[in-house]
Amino acid sequence: MSEMEATVTATERAFHVEGYERIEYDLVYVDGVFDPANTELADSYTPYGRALMVVDETVYGLYRDRIHAYFDHHSIDLTVVPVKIAETAKSLETFEQIVGRFDEFGLVRTEPVLVVGGGLTTDVAGFACASYRRNTPYIRIPTTLIGLIDASVSIKVAVNYGKHKNRLGAYHASQKVLLDFSFLGTLPEDQIRNGMAELIKISVVGNAEIFDMLDEHGVELLSTRFGHRGGSAEVRAIADKLTYKAIETMLELEAPNLHEIQLDRVIAFGHTWSPTLELTPPAPFFHGHAINIDMALSTTLAEERGLITTQDRDRVLGTMNRLGLALDSEYLTPELLAEATTSILRTRDGILRAAVPDPIGACRFLNDITVDELADILTLHKKVCVDFERGGAGVEMFTGGVDA
Amino acid sequence: MSEMEATVTATERAFHVEGYERIEYDLVYVDGVFDPANTELADSYTPYGRALMVVDETVYGLYRDRIHAYFDHHSIDLTVVPVKIAETAKSLETFEQIVGRFDEFGLVRTEPVLVVGGGLTTDVAGFACASYRRNTPYIRIPTTLIGLIDASVSIKVAVNYGKHKNRLGAYHASQKVLLDFSFLGTLPEDQIRNGMAELIKISVVGNAEIFDMLDEHGVELLSTRFGHRGGSAEVRAIADKLTYKAIETMLELEAPNLHEIQLDRVIAFGHTWSPTLELTPPAPFFHGHAINIDMALSTTLAEERGLITTQDRDRVLGTMNRLGLALDSEYLTPELLAEATTSILRTRDGILRAAVPDPIGACRFLNDITVDELADILTLHKKVCVDFERGGAGVEMFTGGVDA
Repeated sequence: MSEMEATVTATERAFHVEGYERIEYDLVYVDGVFDPANTELADSYTPYGRALMVVDETVYGLYRDRIHAYFDHHSIDLTVVPVKIAETAKSLETFEQIVGRFDEFGLVRTEPVLVVGGGLTTDVAGFACASYRRNTPYIRIPTTLIGLIDASVSIKVAVNYGKHKNRLGAYHASQKVLLDFSFLGTLPEDQIRNGMAELIKISVVGNAEIFDMLDEHGVELLSTRFGHRGGSAEVRAIADKLTYKAIETMLELEAPNLHEIQLDRVIAFGHTWSPTLELTPPAPFFHGHAINIDMALSTTLAEERGLITTQDRDRVLGTMNRLGLALDSEYLTPELLAEATTSILRTRDGILRAAVPDPIGACRFLNDITVDELADILTLHKKVCVDFERGGAGVEMFTGGVDA
Repeated sequence: MSEMEATVTATERAFHVEGYERIEYDLVYVDGVFDPANTELADSYTPYGRALMVVDETVYGLYRDRIHAYFDHHSIDLTVVPVKIAETAKSLETFEQIVGRFDEFGLVRTEPVLVVGGGLTTDVAGFACASYRRNTPYIRIPTTLIGLIDASVSIKVAVNYGKHKNRLGAYHASQKVLLDFSFLGTLPEDQIRNGMAELIKISVVGNAEIFDMLDEHGVELLSTRFGHRGGSAEVRAIADKLTYKAIETMLELEAPNLHEIQLDRVIAFGHTWSPTLELTPPAPFFHGHAINIDMALSTTLAEERGLITTQDRDRVLGTMNRLGLALDSEYLTPELLAEATTSILRTRDGILRAAVPDPIGACRFLNDITVDELADILTLHKKVCVDFERGGAGVEMFTGGVDA
């Protein structure tokens, strides 16, 4: 929902318009969003008697029967738009296909689109909703760990353009996000691992309590899909507490800055050098591994600057390593770091703003790192990583599925 | 400029986010925006030493030397993107071409794009700016009467999609609009006439003083291009006063409703049946003529309902007629009105909300007009129109250039 109020000041040679637009949205927990007994979803569509659902085709394959049974039970006529969105199909073409389906459906002005899937699906479909009639409402059901704790908390929607990730998009909050963690039960392990890199991010620079939980229970959370595939009631309780705190921390950090005017961003931890690193290998890194390598290097940097102890550095690197997240890579070179520094300075208004822990659970932004210092830190970092499992390499690091 | 603040309320099973985004922009008069002595434009680009200008190619043809002399004088390196945007090229393809040029230019995050042209150009380029990096600032220089008094006052940007006008777009205010009415000196008469339909709109339902000025001076304003092609100092003074008041009235009416949440809109006068009418002829109506026919019919309706006197009805129709704006057309039939009513109800949430004068200078919304009453009003309207010049037909009504 968005409302707007503005005032006009008129002088002889100018008009000044100043106003505020109201933005309001909810994230609501539902255990089993497609369980007919739960009406949270149906309540939004009963007034229309119908619903248009854009859904990731893998999710649709897994939940097809349950989805149709749910809408049938609530007498809501369902139209399904399955989409297959790989990073390469997060494009203006896919955007246009989705918009075409809105048109065919004859979407009326206030009718919310239902978007079900991971971050890629909600990004593209969300941008279609943002643009259609300049503002079409939508409801999101994230089905991946990244979607549940990261993408759906943000109001950013986008498609890639040319070589640039998320170059075209909008800020468009969904009316409602329905948080159903039971989807994690059917998610492959590599996708859980990727999502856990976002938990490392939010905890190491934003919440020490979450970090302690990841350190202690991370491996079990990964293998039990956060208690949704096997796992004890105790694991499940830990998982619920951890993810709740992660979303809360994320919202507290980002809500005052939904439009990213403030460029010193805590949640940019791991996003200083990784945008260049991620796309460097022939088959790109998984996002989670790319940001983790950046976070690991930043952690070594923080220790060198005396912001965290050597013991804390090794706790952070150890937690990452036990989860199978990469600490280092042959693609991480002094040359790459120099190129990545040049690139990030363009989007951060000429200032580096590298987020590092100070100490675990808190954040500091470093602006004075030279390329030479970075090369020295990298030499040290590679030495440190050798002592960890797999020499600091990650498990299933590349989107092509082949580990180099 | 936009800023954002939000607060988060967390309960055990939900998060509620509520915030306000600040929107702020200026419309500033400049006499001769490309006169090297005027620094209003240069001031925005001197910090960058360069400027990317998206410009209507006709405008560029007419002002090319002046434009380059201006930027040379201020030592600003100018990159020009000329665009030819007919209604048919107001498309996602043109949007993508413009975005491609942003990329080539290597636009940095805070650098404003300069957009020069009429409403079509600023709509498409504005949508490109809205989407690029989710929010790229821009500065508008409108060069048509519609652009100066209508399009640039709004924050709506869009492209057409399929058969729908403005189906994909955004709300994206330009940082600044530079209002230079001297561009009217090179504008063809039919474009001035079209823009004057917007002045009829804003005056008949929003400002009686402007209507009186149009009634008395409209014909001279048209022939002298608002005093910018010949015309006395007196005409120029009247033109300046009239356009200032039109912009002021427009802003007062629309600023509280920039995102169009409120559907009872005064400035929708003339936009109830015209969206269907406009595209009906083989060569579509000029927008100004289409809305004028709608406004003329609505005026006859207001008289029949006793909201304005017969004398006032004839003053309104007479003023329109003397400007060469159409009061009636063979395409205006009971069948078309029935179809157009069905169509507009879909975008107005099932309520007609037809704006009519009550009396001149004020507005009332009618929701209870039946298709039968409309057919009767139309019969009456056609009889009334016969007594006006050209039997109520307009001058140069169709975009194809041939009057039927």
